[in-house]
Amino acid sequence: MTSSLLHVPPPQRLLQPLAMPERLMLGPGPSNVPPRILAASGRQLLGHMHPEMLQVMDEIKAGIQYAFQTQNQLTLAISGTGHCAMEAALLNLLEQGDTVLVAINGIWGQRAAEIARRLGANVRELLKPPGDYFTLQDIEEGLAQQKPSVLFITHGESSTGVLQPLEGLGNLCHRYGCLLLVDAVASLGGAPIFMDQQEIDVLYSGSQKVLNVPPGSAPISFSQRARYHHTAPTNSFFSLREGLAMLAELGLESSWERHRASCAQLCQGLRDMGLELFVKEEKARLPTITTVRVPEGYDWKEITAFLMDNYGIEIAGGLGPSAGKVLRIGLMGCNSTSENVTRVLRALREALRHCPRCRL
Amino acid sequence: MTSSLLHVPPPQRLLQPLAMPERLMLGPGPSNVPPRILAASGRQLLGHMHPEMLQVMDEIKAGIQYAFQTQNQLTLAISGTGHCAMEAALLNLLEQGDTVLVAINGIWGQRAAEIARRLGANVRELLKPPGDYFTLQDIEEGLAQQKPSVLFITHGESSTGVLQPLEGLGNLCHRYGCLLLVDAVASLGGAPIFMDQQEIDVLYSGSQKVLNVPPGSAPISFSQRARYHHTAPTNSFFSLREGLAMLAELGLESSWERHRASCAQLCQGLRDMGLELFVKEEKARLPTITTVRVPEGYDWKEITAFLMDNYGIEIAGGLGPSAGKVLRIGLMGCNSTSENVTRVLRALREALRHCPRCRL
Repeated sequence: MTSSLLHVPPPQRLLQPLAMPERLMLGPGPSNVPPRILAASGRQLLGHMHPEMLQVMDEIKAGIQYAFQTQNQLTLAISGTGHCAMEAALLNLLEQGDTVLVAINGIWGQRAAEIARRLGANVRELLKPPGDYFTLQDIEEGLAQQKPSVLFITHGESSTGVLQPLEGLGNLCHRYGCLLLVDAVASLGGAPIFMDQQEIDVLYSGSQKVLNVPPGSAPISFSQRARYHHTAPTNSFFSLREGLAMLAELGLESSWERHRASCAQLCQGLRDMGLELFVKEEKARLPTITTVRVPEGYDWKEITAFLMDNYGIEIAGGLGPSAGKVLRIGLMGCNSTSENVTRVLRALREALRHCPRCRL
Repeated sequence: MTSSLLHVPPPQRLLQPLAMPERLMLGPGPSNVPPRILAASGRQLLGHMHPEMLQVMDEIKAGIQYAFQTQNQLTLAISGTGHCAMEAALLNLLEQGDTVLVAINGIWGQRAAEIARRLGANVRELLKPPGDYFTLQDIEEGLAQQKPSVLFITHGESSTGVLQPLEGLGNLCHRYGCLLLVDAVASLGGAPIFMDQQEIDVLYSGSQKVLNVPPGSAPISFSQRARYHHTAPTNSFFSLREGLAMLAELGLESSWERHRASCAQLCQGLRDMGLELFVKEEKARLPTITTVRVPEGYDWKEITAFLMDNYGIEIAGGLGPSAGKVLRIGLMGCNSTSENVTRVLRALREALRHCPRCRL
């Protein structure tokens, strides 16, 4: 064979070494990954059907049952990100023509409504302004009017920083003959959730938030049956197993308390700088992702770029309904420490000094 | 908070260390992963929208363009396994009622036909016995009779060990106004394929075969437009980038030659042991996965278990139409070496000695 067979030559830039900077990832996710979980990602792989791999899957199942506080048998890791888990949940709950009530107070409700519409469901939207949460009364009015078979609601609304109260919601839905589907991508491990006690029918999360696992796998739990087969992403599962193991070692309650304390310290620091928190009520604030209003006259992009360029810290602007209005600071899993709160507050203070208002 | 809140305790087995044996993975995939690629999987992550990550995506695109020998702009890595790539290809090519001709000589054609039926396509099957390939005449008869808008065909049929000749196929399809979709999951990098010169319209592969990358990402190339957004599996992409870089450094032609030589050595060794190759014609043998008939009176499960238990070597039984009939030995990427051929032949010789026929 001569090289003249190949009309596309080996790309030069691919022949350079892979070099990546170190960053402190304090945006709404992904968060940094601790060495133990990175080591699991970098292990030699096994066949996805080998007995040891099946044991890892069993351990993941047990870890998710713990994190979700559920005894559901159909509890597993999806081979994909939280977005795949959202699709899997909706696809399994909805058939053409089913009515689904989607609680929308941020981007994730919008996304769920869009997927449900593409599945041919009859989508009814229950709307609240970004930054608000839904009361039991809001939900009951929606259930009574729309008579849906499924209610979708977001526990941790990462686009607005809202923590949705779940108490009584499952029971309410079931009294109206409706299933309760909850998105806990941004909240799992950072704020209490009790799948069984709260009567949640389908619950899913992501790996790259509080669990500090590289994106690529997503915990989900169902009360219904489903099966599939493909070459599972073994190394993603190794690292998910380690993320769940670290959560089990720390304990859920200690994890919630850590996120509560870091968030409180951050909120206090932001207020001390004269900044305004986007979510008014303290109990409605998501402990994993804090939203703060962009101070008047500032351009949020200059602030996030300043932190990235000068401190190697990622924080984010708004998303969907909060776009342009807020900054979002994530403190998740191993990133949720007092030291990181101090680091991001110091960097933010410098940013406000160096990003002069006069340019706007 | 007291621990009485939690009715599901931390699972004990998750509190044990993660321990995995080392195995030589000579089945039909996944194959072993070299240290450089494992190191990339275990790197600290970056945000999926950070500029360095976008550069990695560009490098992956260039690497796939090289591996596929294409200049298609819509060339990317799917955040999922080869099975996701098959779904993405069919979903993008087919609409309800479209006629698709599926060439079935093993399990992958069956799988594609099943997905296409669920998409509402009018599926026509072109059948050949397992172990056979399709001639241009076979295909032309199918095109003339069925007038499909898409032809699906498998380049490397991993369930039977058949390498499908592609010369002239794209041109033939286009003369009949039909698009050509090719599955190269098991063959890419191990046998020549020239997407542009062979006029292939959609081509996809997997990461866990010749590229030696952990499962979880899949190269694909289209002539059409599509877009999506989710949290991309960054560490899967780091390792895919390194797998493509190693292929670019070795060179496609050297890679093909390596797989040809190892396969030839293996086939000779199998014949010397008195075993019968499943694919008769040498040119129709997939250089990455060799299928050999289970010798009369033996139970294939005892042979594969013997290799696993005594040598830590994985080989596989048949799949779909070849189930129960063959053993499948994979020699892919870094596993495709003369030393591994010697190892697996020695282990197989011992297995035939120790798995007595009299028990059957």
